[in-house]
Amino acid sequence: MAVYTPISDEELEAFLDEYDLGQLVSFSGIAEGVENSNFLVRTTADTFILTLYEKRVNPDDLPFFIELMRHLAKKGLNVPSPVPGRDGVTLRALNGRPAAVVTFVNGVWRRRIQPSCCRELGAGMAEMHLAGQDFAMARANDLSVAGWRPLFESCDLPSREIYHALHNQLNGELRHLEAHWPTDLPAGTIHADLFPDNVFFLADKLSGFIDFYFACTDLLAYDLAICLNAWCFEKDGSFNVTKAQNLVSGYESVRPLSVAEREALPILARGSALRFLLTRLYDWLNHPEGALVKPKDPMEYQQKLRFHQTVSGPTAYGLS
Amino acid sequence: MAVYTPISDEELEAFLDEYDLGQLVSFSGIAEGVENSNFLVRTTADTFILTLYEKRVNPDDLPFFIELMRHLAKKGLNVPSPVPGRDGVTLRALNGRPAAVVTFVNGVWRRRIQPSCCRELGAGMAEMHLAGQDFAMARANDLSVAGWRPLFESCDLPSREIYHALHNQLNGELRHLEAHWPTDLPAGTIHADLFPDNVFFLADKLSGFIDFYFACTDLLAYDLAICLNAWCFEKDGSFNVTKAQNLVSGYESVRPLSVAEREALPILARGSALRFLLTRLYDWLNHPEGALVKPKDPMEYQQKLRFHQTVSGPTAYGLS
Repeated sequence: MAVYTPISDEELEAFLDEYDLGQLVSFSGIAEGVENSNFLVRTTADTFILTLYEKRVNPDDLPFFIELMRHLAKKGLNVPSPVPGRDGVTLRALNGRPAAVVTFVNGVWRRRIQPSCCRELGAGMAEMHLAGQDFAMARANDLSVAGWRPLFESCDLPSREIYHALHNQLNGELRHLEAHWPTDLPAGTIHADLFPDNVFFLADKLSGFIDFYFACTDLLAYDLAICLNAWCFEKDGSFNVTKAQNLVSGYESVRPLSVAEREALPILARGSALRFLLTRLYDWLNHPEGALVKPKDPMEYQQKLRFHQTVSGPTAYGLS
Repeated sequence: MAVYTPISDEELEAFLDEYDLGQLVSFSGIAEGVENSNFLVRTTADTFILTLYEKRVNPDDLPFFIELMRHLAKKGLNVPSPVPGRDGVTLRALNGRPAAVVTFVNGVWRRRIQPSCCRELGAGMAEMHLAGQDFAMARANDLSVAGWRPLFESCDLPSREIYHALHNQLNGELRHLEAHWPTDLPAGTIHADLFPDNVFFLADKLSGFIDFYFACTDLLAYDLAICLNAWCFEKDGSFNVTKAQNLVSGYESVRPLSVAEREALPILARGSALRFLLTRLYDWLNHPEGALVKPKDPMEYQQKLRFHQTVSGPTAYGLS
């Protein structure tokens, strides 16, 4: 469930009084999502999402996220568009939490991925990358290669004997990635969390992107590598090369990759697999007893990492 | 959280194909509610609630609930109106659960109760009672006096020494209620669960009722007694006689109580307090470890029961 901070009708009505959004018609907590508290708010004017940012989001990062959504929305992308109050201020406070209202993005996320979804995703992601090229703000990716070793060490695997093999395996992978991580590829603003539940479709067409709270400035091709992991494996762990082909060719229909970017895909995919393996492992080892949100299985990403370790070049992803 | 049964986009789209509701625009699980799985479904036509009935609801009771909502909606009450499929069938199946689509009721529930809310509630409840008078179906209240002893016994208090005092206290109360429970008062269709979160307001006006899944055929004044407990106590446990006065006078502005109904209010309030005490106690003693829904504190209703035990007549509720 994704309502950590309840709000009352009176609190919400007082909050909405600062906006020019008409009268409150209804609101309900949204069950999906794990990081923040989200409410679907209907007014006489329209439908909105109210987000209360919980403690895993660094408040200093919020202006970047908000302004990025505003920038992309202004460029015509269908993303949540931040709604300022009458005083022009978007980032406010409600119930002791930073809070913001954004427009509602129509669409449903695809539970079962068709290859055609991957093509739509690739093209939409490339459009987002192009639209983000002139975004003036920057935010370092604290979950890229420099952030992995501190995260790995905070998992404290050596303290538990059953994790010794995993520790050695991940330590070796980390050394490899630290030694070979590319630095000279095109960079820009990336979403960095384009999992299926953050990508909306209406019928067969991509209708929008949501959840920009991991967005950052990083290698553009790294966003693609994240999607290779999040969209192109089957439930049984097998890699679906048709989906990968569709993803990359959809991307290249809008923004062709350089040779260096193509060559870097295997290591970027390894890094992306390690990133989600490490964050899931950390959550797995540290989630409180009886937590509302069940942590995701980290071992899914161990299997994906192993696949990419066997890859000798971009042809393994269906690239000619 | 109130999504026990997840549904996929494809399952929902196939389900909605049986309806004449336009194209799916978005859907999200609703965090509120504890009994069933509820989804807010937006289509090109309108906004709806899709409910999947979970195992605490007896499927045999569903036609009563559905037809009652239809009956009340047809009479002009603002309640969820069941939406049939193209084949005229309302009660369908989705993901192995009985499922139904109803219209969305605008409004927000009041977290902080003003006496004027109680007046609105009383009048609205009386209108619902009148509108239900010619409803043709009947459903016995399995949580009225005949159902309390089996529920009490299934709590198995004697098996745990710390509950011996509570066992004796509740056993005595049960005997009193079984001996004195009124039988000759006006009966009809009651909601039987009119807690604040089931009553919607827009500004200061009552805008609708939801959640008819405890509705039944019982004494009309028992519905009022449930609201005396659910709406007229403060957080510190004190009884607010102004709220009770407002509740009853609002009710009587639409449907005056008989002398016998007024005289019966204290015992009906005791019975209603015991009913919620017993169901909460049962859930408290039987909820599985790590359950998603935290059981409600039964002792809140022990305190309310004690208050009503001290009451000598309806004047204690502010009735002249």
